[in-house]
Amino acid sequence: MTYCVGMVLQRGLVFMSDTRTNAGLDNISTFKKMKTWSVPGDRIFTALSAGNLGTTQSVISLLDERTKSSADREPALLSAPSMFQAARLVADTLREVIARQRPAGQTADSTFNATMIFGGQIAGSDPKLFLIYPEGNFIEASADTPFFQIGEIKYGRPILVRAFKEDMAFEEAIRLLLVSFDSTMKANLTVGAPLDYLCVERDTMRIAASGRFEGDDPALQTISRIWGDALQQALDGLPGVDLRSV
Amino acid sequence: MTYCVGMVLQRGLVFMSDTRTNAGLDNISTFKKMKTWSVPGDRIFTALSAGNLGTTQSVISLLDERTKSSADREPALLSAPSMFQAARLVADTLREVIARQRPAGQTADSTFNATMIFGGQIAGSDPKLFLIYPEGNFIEASADTPFFQIGEIKYGRPILVRAFKEDMAFEEAIRLLLVSFDSTMKANLTVGAPLDYLCVERDTMRIAASGRFEGDDPALQTISRIWGDALQQALDGLPGVDLRSV
Repeated sequence: MTYCVGMVLQRGLVFMSDTRTNAGLDNISTFKKMKTWSVPGDRIFTALSAGNLGTTQSVISLLDERTKSSADREPALLSAPSMFQAARLVADTLREVIARQRPAGQTADSTFNATMIFGGQIAGSDPKLFLIYPEGNFIEASADTPFFQIGEIKYGRPILVRAFKEDMAFEEAIRLLLVSFDSTMKANLTVGAPLDYLCVERDTMRIAASGRFEGDDPALQTISRIWGDALQQALDGLPGVDLRSV
Repeated sequence: MTYCVGMVLQRGLVFMSDTRTNAGLDNISTFKKMKTWSVPGDRIFTALSAGNLGTTQSVISLLDERTKSSADREPALLSAPSMFQAARLVADTLREVIARQRPAGQTADSTFNATMIFGGQIAGSDPKLFLIYPEGNFIEASADTPFFQIGEIKYGRPILVRAFKEDMAFEEAIRLLLVSFDSTMKANLTVGAPLDYLCVERDTMRIAASGRFEGDDPALQTISRIWGDALQQALDGLPGVDLRSV
């Protein structure tokens, strides 16, 4: 499994992804699930992926090749005229890779499925964030739904639902995401550190900050510990409930 | 969907269940998913159920009939010699009801599946709590795994994992459960109030407290609001993270 989140803030876009992949329970590896393409100042795109690693790596490689070879007859991500067209290119590539596996004898196509978060900005238009389904269709984030999660989304969702604010600073957003990821990692073995993050400031078409929190990163461990203590205090501070004795 | 939790505390057993059932998204009803049988002072059993409502109601009705009619040739729950035998009876009944649906032409038997939490105490032995699978096998709670969840378990799990303590008072346990259920209800439409709860004090074989929190219960609403505020404060109180600028 996997856990990835993309957010649209007033200040720009924020992405975070874990790095654990597993084929069965005894074959666990670390792979980066975040990929960025950019022409600084003109456009920047980031993709997060969850699902079959063969599928998502193929999608990224295909998009990458199409990015590098300008002679390629396929439309290139870096020349897409709009974020919508860029998202359509990613979605078509995802659907194409999944479809290519079908004739190989595997009837349960869900095995090859993958879901992606794709976001970025092209100079002259607003930052956009999309959730791309394995079927190749996608939805766009809006003020009502300003973040997308993929993978093992449920454990870390309540805190996002409650604490997301679109006027957060990047640092606050990353802190919120660390709490959401920490809650997920505490409850589920298939999501694991290191955690990659990326912040794109609005209208700069440049990476504002990016990096990785290792599992033993003091910042991550401190946040996990202080958050645990704070939750306990918050529980202790709740008003009593009257139980109906029988 | 459904969300139910059973806990083993030093002080006894605590159960909570939601009441929402849905067949599709446009057919939503309220059903109690908690059932108790008791011979006060001698034995008390409680079952929580998640899954196909037809299946779980059949299981409860069968167990109920076998409880009432002492002339019934089937073994009755109220004469089971031990908690283990009682759990086996519940598990066998569950498997039997699911198996009966199979020849009806539905091949995807998961449609009729259900999972149950079953707990209680018989005078002279310890309180016990079991998680019963649709296949009719079951596991017992232990000091390492002192609570079971069924249904839509993920949203409300992180707070249980972090804050469960076996020496909690009943009131603290119910408060923790209200937070766990509130987080789930905020994130998922298929879990909904009213919430039923039941506390069984160790070695009394009697209900210590039981009741229902309606969705507009001031206690539930107050806890939800104060918890939201406390989470926000806890987030604000986290140490800053240093983002690596690029």
